[in-house]
Amino acid sequence: MEIIRNNFKSNLHKVYQAIEEADFFAIDGEFSGISDGPSVSALTNGFDTPEERYQKLKKHSMDFLLFQFGLCTFKYDYTDSKYIMKSFNFYVFPKPFNRSSPDVKFVCQSSSIDFLASQGFDFNKVFRNGIPYLNQEEERQLREQYDEKRSQANGAAVLAYVSPNTSKCPATVPEDQKKFIDQVVEKIEDLLQSEENKTLDLEPCTGYPKGLHIETLETEKKERYIVISKVDEEERKRREQQKHAKEQEELNDAVGFSRVIHAIANSGKLVVGHNMLLDVMHTIHQFYCPLPVDLKEFKEMTTCVFPRLLDTKLMASTQPFKDIINNTSLAELEKRLKETPFNPPKVESAEGFPSYDTASEQLHEAGYDAYITGLCFISMANHLGSFLSPPKVHVSARSKLIEPFFNKLFLMRVMDIPYLNLEGPDLQPKRDHVLHVTFPKEWKSSDLYQLFSAFGNIQISWIDDTSAFVSLSQPEQVPIAVNTSRYAESYRIQTYADYVGKKQEEKQIKRKWTDDNWKEVERKRLNTQSLSHTLHNHYYAPDSFIATSTVRKRNLSPSPEAGSEDRVLGTVSDSELEQVDSSAESLSEGKKKPKKLKRMKKELTSAGSIAVSPTKLFEVPDTW
Amino acid sequence: MEIIRNNFKSNLHKVYQAIEEADFFAIDGEFSGISDGPSVSALTNGFDTPEERYQKLKKHSMDFLLFQFGLCTFKYDYTDSKYIMKSFNFYVFPKPFNRSSPDVKFVCQSSSIDFLASQGFDFNKVFRNGIPYLNQEEERQLREQYDEKRSQANGAAVLAYVSPNTSKCPATVPEDQKKFIDQVVEKIEDLLQSEENKTLDLEPCTGYPKGLHIETLETEKKERYIVISKVDEEERKRREQQKHAKEQEELNDAVGFSRVIHAIANSGKLVVGHNMLLDVMHTIHQFYCPLPVDLKEFKEMTTCVFPRLLDTKLMASTQPFKDIINNTSLAELEKRLKETPFNPPKVESAEGFPSYDTASEQLHEAGYDAYITGLCFISMANHLGSFLSPPKVHVSARSKLIEPFFNKLFLMRVMDIPYLNLEGPDLQPKRDHVLHVTFPKEWKSSDLYQLFSAFGNIQISWIDDTSAFVSLSQPEQVPIAVNTSRYAESYRIQTYADYVGKKQEEKQIKRKWTDDNWKEVERKRLNTQSLSHTLHNHYYAPDSFIATSTVRKRNLSPSPEAGSEDRVLGTVSDSELEQVDSSAESLSEGKKKPKKLKRMKKELTSAGSIAVSPTKLFEVPDTW
Repeated sequence: MEIIRNNFKSNLHKVYQAIEEADFFAIDGEFSGISDGPSVSALTNGFDTPEERYQKLKKHSMDFLLFQFGLCTFKYDYTDSKYIMKSFNFYVFPKPFNRSSPDVKFVCQSSSIDFLASQGFDFNKVFRNGIPYLNQEEERQLREQYDEKRSQANGAAVLAYVSPNTSKCPATVPEDQKKFIDQVVEKIEDLLQSEENKTLDLEPCTGYPKGLHIETLETEKKERYIVISKVDEEERKRREQQKHAKEQEELNDAVGFSRVIHAIANSGKLVVGHNMLLDVMHTIHQFYCPLPVDLKEFKEMTTCVFPRLLDTKLMASTQPFKDIINNTSLAELEKRLKETPFNPPKVESAEGFPSYDTASEQLHEAGYDAYITGLCFISMANHLGSFLSPPKVHVSARSKLIEPFFNKLFLMRVMDIPYLNLEGPDLQPKRDHVLHVTFPKEWKSSDLYQLFSAFGNIQISWIDDTSAFVSLSQPEQVPIAVNTSRYAESYRIQTYADYVGKKQEEKQIKRKWTDDNWKEVERKRLNTQSLSHTLHNHYYAPDSFIATSTVRKRNLSPSPEAGSEDRVLGTVSDSELEQVDSSAESLSEGKKKPKKLKRMKKELTSAGSIAVSPTKLFEVPDTW
Repeated sequence: MEIIRNNFKSNLHKVYQAIEEADFFAIDGEFSGISDGPSVSALTNGFDTPEERYQKLKKHSMDFLLFQFGLCTFKYDYTDSKYIMKSFNFYVFPKPFNRSSPDVKFVCQSSSIDFLASQGFDFNKVFRNGIPYLNQEEERQLREQYDEKRSQANGAAVLAYVSPNTSKCPATVPEDQKKFIDQVVEKIEDLLQSEENKTLDLEPCTGYPKGLHIETLETEKKERYIVISKVDEEERKRREQQKHAKEQEELNDAVGFSRVIHAIANSGKLVVGHNMLLDVMHTIHQFYCPLPVDLKEFKEMTTCVFPRLLDTKLMASTQPFKDIINNTSLAELEKRLKETPFNPPKVESAEGFPSYDTASEQLHEAGYDAYITGLCFISMANHLGSFLSPPKVHVSARSKLIEPFFNKLFLMRVMDIPYLNLEGPDLQPKRDHVLHVTFPKEWKSSDLYQLFSAFGNIQISWIDDTSAFVSLSQPEQVPIAVNTSRYAESYRIQTYADYVGKKQEEKQIKRKWTDDNWKEVERKRLNTQSLSHTLHNHYYAPDSFIATSTVRKRNLSPSPEAGSEDRVLGTVSDSELEQVDSSAESLSEGKKKPKKLKRMKKELTSAGSIAVSPTKLFEVPDTW
């Protein structure tokens, strides 16, 4: 179901209902661009730490606009053993609400726009008819504006009953305006004496006469004019209430699409996305608040907004799937999961909702991408049931079997860290075979291959024009390489550990001496406080969709828009992606923390007895 | 005539012909936004100097995209005493040409987008079917790429005739690729022995076998594959030439819309726009090169690209028009110029070109705005003829009568400098009644009115949150105001002269000590050199539309897109504009340089005898 500005209000109850009855959601977002700085390959360096990746995406991706949001709700029908699906495709645009409302500037990246255009994306729907939205701070400010206006109006109303002579400062009427004022006074006097007329429209002007019920309205040409009405006390109150209700409605209209995200967040239900880090970041940034300064806060914020996220790309890249799934791009994954040993899920569109045909692909429409992301999740979840004894055909979104995959977001193109862990510290691979090399900007890959020709196979990860990581096949070669470069003039080689150490040092010095950073630290501190407050408010009111205004309403609670990696990359080809994606698939060995393992075992036991050792099957490693 | 990517090539000759036969052009541009920094009112402060205004527009407006360009060509038909008009409405979008071509990022401003949407602007046409373009540096780089590729190909061709054993570095074929290579070798051997087959398509791969005529082609899926053909020397040359021609065509396609701008520029003909400063800046920035660091260079660049510009808003705000034209916004001006003492111009669409109906306004479509800008110019130019004795009904675009209006671009909302003078230094009003005031950011206009309540009427021009210019009615009050503020703590008052002096000082200190600035200065110096070189190349080849490649082709020569001030302001209302526009109309007194006067007199005399004193009629003051 396509939702635009014109039909948003009349369909919002359907959205709310779908969210309320669903077992889980799948989401996806389309953006106006990916990177306003480095190329995508530099943006996603193979040896980024999660913190570095977060900082890069925050710096280079958040000025783009999320302008299409796909939401697909899935509800399991136990009677017919099938899922009932409702799909929504929202067009989103920050149409300025009024003259004092924020005038959002966003960046477009030609390659991304061109890619979407080639997929038939309808830009007119976005720009002419996108649903507006406000983030929480903007909503708060608008609410304050209304409150202030109302308290001023009340003040004016009180003043209106005071004798005109007591007015604080008598206004001097300029000579050229006297005639106009006289006419107004005359008309008001006529109105007071008239038996028939109850209302008087004054001509547009900037003045403000006193008395009776006064309302300022606008003509179609946006000229303001005043309506003066004779009303008794009861009628006056009724009108004030009417006005208040109208203002409330205007405010809701301005909050617009953010209400959908609030509802998803407030439900506390499982939200599934494919390669969803960027979607989650955009959703929080656009509909809640600017992203926090560091990754730790982002994790806190995200888990308090979306307590349960699941990334199908990470799931497909992890045991027991990684060995039987070669290509984890969304389209390929969806095809693979229809074949043995997987079963295509039974999913039907709800009555009155259009259905998608996976045979004729509509990839890169957010609603469709969300839909097939949901299909992928169902197939993979159900597959986990086949390892139980007795096997289960349906594994629900609430099953303990899928919990090991919660809140781990796929890290695209990182060689040795498959995911961002929202629930705690990230994996810290040793990287003792990795070198950091700086060199003149004329150097190309061939120069690096030549430089390291004595060391056998190497792998290059470009950072920028003048630096790259080079990973050797054996860590023992690292000191040799560093040593041989000691007297080199044009280039410099250091170990990865040294590089990280120096970077940390620089960062601390910068922190210490930059005023701006101090301010940020302070802001951070305050943010964190309000965040934990928010967390509590939220968690214990998971199903309240109706706005209650004031503090509670301002809580943090955004929703991610799931990203499909090929769309995210714009012009980057599928083959390139596959090449890189495969890196995550070869990385699932390592040690696990005993505590985590224990929990996982317990969960799996409670879900049924396990046919095969669960640690080998469901591992999402949390150390490397 | 609507020109998009699909029909650009097939209609380009029509555009060239229209440019070649025209007497003058009118242009207009539509942008994705106006200001990515301060609000429009702060962007256009009433006491900006031309240099300040240029810097602000350069900093805050150039990241937007000019995505619709209107060109209207006017040719006078002496037989029927009417203009024949050809109107073109171009949709422009920087579609990336190939993987290595620039991936342009541009900013959109919600209010501007929303405004255009409300006017029915078709964003799909821009993003799906906009004509691509390259600036001169990008064109140069692409040309180099092609040259390099060709010289490499030639090298390879030479190499192909050398015995395989002499290849410089024997490649080691990896074990897993041996089979593939063997198959390729086998196929090539088959081809050589075959009588029937002349061509062999190899499967997609990254390798590059040697010999014969080799061509790399792409499948629809963008996979590359190699075609090997048996050809004799003559056929080989023919194919090389074919390939070269094809490359040339690809290059022309990539330069795309810039070719239209080059043609306009190369014609050296009069280009008319309405409130056209921003249009000119965007056109140069987008289709020629990033704007120069300072205003002086911008003037040089602009006049060498467009030797004759005329701004109808400036014309309408100047004698003999300013007294009889109240509102100079484009739509209002067009209406006014149909009435006495003006005559609606006789203009007809050329055969095969659609005509516009000025009764049903299509404002803010660039082609239409360019059209009515042309109408306005014709009416005003003809009106000048009525002052001659005997009066002339038709005043041509080459008449001396209109030369006083050349190369003076309207400065929007500047109180006392009506235009930017492209041909020399700008007017320097004394501003001895102006104060510069700084204050706490909580202050509002009312605080300033109160502060200056002793000084009668004042006028406030906000600079930012904490500063504003305040103009007093009498210069004599200035020292008193400065003096009374001497011991004030929360605010500070200085004369305009002191403010400018300190700013200059700061700028010089900054210049002196900032490395980056030194680099800029150096760059500037080099730029200016190449510019004057360019100027000469250009001026003496005014009608060469066909690209001649290499140095000449890389010259500066963009065209402005005329802006209509109400469109430019997005959400700013017409009434606001009129209020501000009027400031320019009250300013046409002052001293004129004797030299200029003399020239003007001479011109007017040569055009016919003058009925009324020309100095009073046609003055565009050049000092204040």
